[in-house]
Order: sequence, then structure tokens, then C-alpha cells
Amino acid sequence: MHSNPIFLDNNGTTLLDPRVLEVMLPYLSNQYGNATSRHSFGRAARQALDQAREQVAEACGAHPSQVIFTASGTESDNFAIAGMAGDEQKQIAVSAIEHPAITRPAFAMRAYGHRVGVIAADQFGVVDSNSLEVALEKPTSLISVMLANNETGVIQNIAQLAEIAKSKGALIHTDAVQALGKIPVNFDALGVNAMTVSSHKINGPQGAGALILDKRVDIKPLLHGGGQERGLRSGTENVAAIVGFGAACALIKNEMEQRANITKLLRDTLEKNLKSLGGSIFGDKATRLPNTSFFAFNQIEGETLVMALDRKGFAVASGSACSSDSTEPSHVLMAMGVAPDLARGAVRVSFGANNTSEQLNAFLAVINDEVNRLRQLTAVTI
Amino acid sequence: MHSNPIFLDNNGTTLLDPRVLEVMLPYLSNQYGNATSRHSFGRAARQALDQAREQVAEACGAHPSQVIFTASGTESDNFAIAGMAGDEQKQIAVSAIEHPAITRPAFAMRAYGHRVGVIAADQFGVVDSNSLEVALEKPTSLISVMLANNETGVIQNIAQLAEIAKSKGALIHTDAVQALGKIPVNFDALGVNAMTVSSHKINGPQGAGALILDKRVDIKPLLHGGGQERGLRSGTENVAAIVGFGAACALIKNEMEQRANITKLLRDTLEKNLKSLGGSIFGDKATRLPNTSFFAFNQIEGETLVMALDRKGFAVASGSACSSDSTEPSHVLMAMGVAPDLARGAVRVSFGANNTSEQLNAFLAVINDEVNRLRQLTAVTI
Repeated sequence: MHSNPIFLDNNGTTLLDPRVLEVMLPYLSNQYGNATSRHSFGRAARQALDQAREQVAEACGAHPSQVIFTASGTESDNFAIAGMAGDEQKQIAVSAIEHPAITRPAFAMRAYGHRVGVIAADQFGVVDSNSLEVALEKPTSLISVMLANNETGVIQNIAQLAEIAKSKGALIHTDAVQALGKIPVNFDALGVNAMTVSSHKINGPQGAGALILDKRVDIKPLLHGGGQERGLRSGTENVAAIVGFGAACALIKNEMEQRANITKLLRDTLEKNLKSLGGSIFGDKATRLPNTSFFAFNQIEGETLVMALDRKGFAVASGSACSSDSTEPSHVLMAMGVAPDLARGAVRVSFGANNTSEQLNAFLAVINDEVNRLRQLTAVTI
Repeated sequence: MHSNPIFLDNNGTTLLDPRVLEVMLPYLSNQYGNATSRHSFGRAARQALDQAREQVAEACGAHPSQVIFTASGTESDNFAIAGMAGDEQKQIAVSAIEHPAITRPAFAMRAYGHRVGVIAADQFGVVDSNSLEVALEKPTSLISVMLANNETGVIQNIAQLAEIAKSKGALIHTDAVQALGKIPVNFDALGVNAMTVSSHKINGPQGAGALILDKRVDIKPLLHGGGQERGLRSGTENVAAIVGFGAACALIKNEMEQRANITKLLRDTLEKNLKSLGGSIFGDKATRLPNTSFFAFNQIEGETLVMALDRKGFAVASGSACSSDSTEPSHVLMAMGVAPDLARGAVRVSFGANNTSEQLNAFLAVINDEVNRLRQLTAVTI
């Protein structure tokens, strides 16, 4: 590992904010307790969960009673898909640019007789209302479209899609994992029935997520057992992680705008440089998250560039971290109609507010060098 | 809360060992990374997971490749039941003394056409081979019997039950959450196909568990998504919690015997006192965990005694913490044929190696007082 590597993969995970860790530490030492227990230790843990529930609800524009804590965004997504698909064997429609934590549980539901429909995205990475209307021509129980895409950062008009879904009697879920903390997220205003959020993407700890749920929805639990979370999600609550998730949500309130300004400046400066190098930027004609840049250079493999940058001490992603075991071109870019050769060049840089312009300048120098070096190698090979 | 409450509910959860926290802290600060990422941060996280996998495997008498990390014992139990029940609509047979994290997912499988059979326990809290053979008269895909009961501490002869299950072509899972760290646990020697373990019951952090799985078993994932854990359990790994789980497992190796000696001395001294007070001890004719005492006094409600002890600064449980929202008498005691009136008196004390004889002496003084006081109140009422 490079002596002081610089982390530019904040859509993959984020640094646990030291202020959040500070709030968690008592729950990792003397403030232990099973929140289900009735004795003093248990009651203290319960109170800590209650406060975190309020903090998460406020960050999401929801009511605390709508927050169901889980262990991850993936669990929340699986819970929503399996729990809300209903007993009738109708279609589950998911967008073509969803995270595998949505598409794979949807496909798993085919074992129980459900159909899976795919809602197309356009060349800009946008899932538009026409695509949804086409998908909804089949009887549909549930649709899921993410609020902001993890690869391109493109933001979807979920409120509009929610209206259409509801007019057709379908439930709608949105994965807001990448949106929370980067843009305003308001469960009420989006008009969805359920929404996934995750702690470790917002400088909280790994191990906590939530499904924000309209309580009128009849959802089936994914985890059965001791009856925690009003019987909807059993399992001893991870008190320290949930407390950290709450604290990270509380910080968003005052800091989101500033964080967005910092990361947008870094991102825009990066993209100006990438364009002058001849790079293609994916999704940049649509409204995007402020921190995310997904790009490619002709004839330079993304994986090769990522490894070259890693050797120089910069951590960036090729496609989504969550599917980095795969060498297939990004399904998001395929859905956008990007040529497979160019898509194989895809590299994602995602900034955090703790990144600095000094780090960016060092990165620009290195990426310019590496792109030129790899181009020469390619030229020689050809 | 009492100024210095004493925790005697170590089957509910445990103090995070400060040595374990020490090992976790780097992963809660600068050693962050998504273990799926290919860059240096991701690789470091992956290495940490690999080491933890070896530590957990060694504590369980298993091979590292048999360890599937999850977020909790409850998740592991749900994963085993839903994942191993198979496509044929045969019986899932669970013992009458299982934790709800086993019985409730088993009952949920009825929606997909599975039958649920209950394997009886005897008056000593033991699930014997005859009961299993009776249950197996119906075609059975999967049985689940816990290694040690969370309420009574009674240890089951799982190796014997596993032989019977296998001779009938049924898969067998055991929930070893309460056994690990208190008695030797050896996956190979038990001969089961799958085994659940959990971190926060062995002085590790909340938020990590594992399913130890015979790789020849064709299990369906419960969480679908990014394909972590060889595609069997998706979701970004909670690196710090898993590292802590590994560290807690490593400590067991050298310390289990000593811990068992400490807690057994405390437990036996407590029970001598309880008997002299006229208490009934549940399961004490069977082989039990060294740390657990489950008892009752005639005409004293368990909940009342627990609250009285809590006011005096001692945290104990009435029945299982995981079902403390319920006022029903313990299903474990009902299965053992205990009279409901006596069962409603049940109180569980579960020691940890960090409890001291001074704490026990203080507790004895208080419980003697409280039992006598509550008996007088009852006498007056009558």
C-alpha cells in the first residue's frame, strides 16, 4: 500500500466521522445492553435507539415511527422487495440502473411466481415517466427506482414516478443510499411507500441501515425472531452502530450544503481536466450528485487505470465497488446505450468533504501522466 | 438507573472486551474501506476479514471456507431455515425449546407450503433421540436443535441427534449462540450441516454473526446483491464488527476454561443460596452451561423480582431478553412441563467472567431481602 493513499471512492464507503465515533464509544464500552432487556442497561440502550430514530427520521423527512433499523442498505433493499411484493404473482418492476441489492432479490422472487420487469433508462441515465408507463402496462405490485445512481450520480425524478406508480395501484420503493447526505432527501415529498438509507455512505459506521416505511403498507418481515422493530425486523439491535448512524444523520443537517459545495468544486475541476484530456463523462447531461464523476478514455481499460492510480496512491473505483468481482461492463452504462468498449474504460471518482484541493491537484497530475502513459502503451500494442 | 449497576445478564449480551475494542478501533478510523473494492483500502479490509474468518473458524472447529459472515445470530438462523428448507414441501422440524429466531422463520415458511414439526423436550429440558425419531416419522427436509438453551443453559447431545437426522436424510442445523465461548464447540465433531454463532454473546461487538456451513449443502441466500461471501450473503461487510468478532474468538481459545471456572463457581454459590431460600432451579438435573441459572420462587412473579432487583442495581432477566415484550410464561418451561404459575416466576441470572464474588455477595444479600419482602407482600395479599 502507498504510504499515504488518498481515498476518492466515497460512494463505496466513507471515513467514519471522528465526531460520530466519539458518540459511539460509550456504547462500545460501559453502556452495553440488549435494547430488548427491561433492566437499566436495556432501558439505556433503548433510549439511545429512540434518539437515533429521531435523528434518522429528521434527516429523511420522515416520522420516527416510520424508521425500521436494519444492518445495511442491502438488507433494507431485500426487505423492501421481498416484503412488499405481495402474495399476488404480479410484476415487480425495477429500473435498468438499480444496484444488484435491488435487481437480485427481485429476480429471486421469480421462484415464488413473481415476474420481473425492467424499467428502461435513457442515454442520459434517466429513468423517465414514459419508460415507467410502458412497464406498468403489465399488472404490477411494486416498483423500485433509485433516487441517485451509485455509478453516474444521476438523480431521478422520484416524486413524478411515484405519482404514476400510485395512479396504477403499484407500491413504490426508492433506494436513497447514495442520495442521503449529498442532496436533500424528503420521504414525504418524494411520495414513495418505502425508502432505503445506509449509515456508512454518510460518514457513519458500517453495520446500520434503515427502511423508511409508510406504515399503511403491509410488509412481511425478512428477519423473524425476537420481535424487535415492532415485529418487522428481529435481531438484537446493533446499538453502537445505530447510535452512530443517528449522529451521522444529525451532522448532515448543518453540513450538507457545505459538503456539497466542497465536493462539487472538486468534481467540476476534475471533469474540466478530464475533458481536456479527451475523456467522456457519463451522465453529465442530467442532474447529478455533486460529488460523483464517472468517466472513460477510449482504449484505456478502466481496471488498468484504477490499478495504475492505486499504485500511485489514489483509491478510485472501476464501476460499482459492489460488483467489482465482475469484469462485465457496467450494467448502468449498458442501459444508457454506451458502447461496450468505452464502458469497459469506466472509472468512478467520488469525493468526500474531507478531500482537499491539494489532493485533487496531486490526483490531476497523476491521472494526466497515467492516461498519457497508457495511451502510448496502447499505441505501441496496436 | 442505579449509580453502579451490576450486569448479571450475560446471556442477553456481554461487555465488549476492551482488548477487542482496541483491535477494532483502527477499522473505525483511518483503516476504512469497502472490502469489495480493489484498491489499497479495499484490500486491507479484505485481509482483515480473512484473518477474522480464520479466528472464527478456529473457535468453532471449522475451516475458514465454511464461515459465512452475517450481521447477527438472528440473521444466521433465518438464513439457515429459509435457505436450507429446500424446494420440496417437506417438514421443517424444530425443537420445542428453540429461540424465536428459529421457530418464527420456520413458521413463516408455511406460506411456501412447508410443514413445521416440533421436537419435544423432556422435563429436564433435554431434546432426546426418541423425540427426534418421532418427529422424523414425517418426511423432513431440515431439523434445528440448539446446542445450549439460552434460558436454562441445558446442553443438547447434538452429535447424537445429527446422526439420527442424517440417517433419515434430513439436514441438521444447530444454534450455538449460547454455547460458543462457554463450552467447547466443534462443528466437525457435532456433525451438523450448519451452525449459528454470534459475536455479542462472547464479549465481541454487536453486529456480527456467522453461519458455519458444510459447503456441500445447497443453501439459498437470504440477502441478494453485490455477491459478497461467495454470493451467499450480500451486503457491504461490517469490517470493524467482524474484526472484533474474530478477536473475541481468538480470546476464547486461551480463556474459555478459566472463564467457565469463574462463572461456574459464582453460579453454584448462587444456586446453593437459592435452594436454601426455597427456590426451584430449572434444568439443573441436566448438563448445563457453567454460567446460567434459571429459577423461580413460588408466588413471586419473575417480572416483579426482576424490577425489584433492578431498583437495587442488579440487571437480570425474566425469561429470554429476546422475548421480554411478552408476558407469556417461557415457552421453554412450558415445553418442560413446568406449571404455568411457577413458570411465571422465572428469573435468569447469567454470569460473565468479569463478574466477581464481591458482586455475587452483594447480589445474594439483596435477593434474600427481596424474596422475603415479596413473600410477605404476597402473604398479606392472600
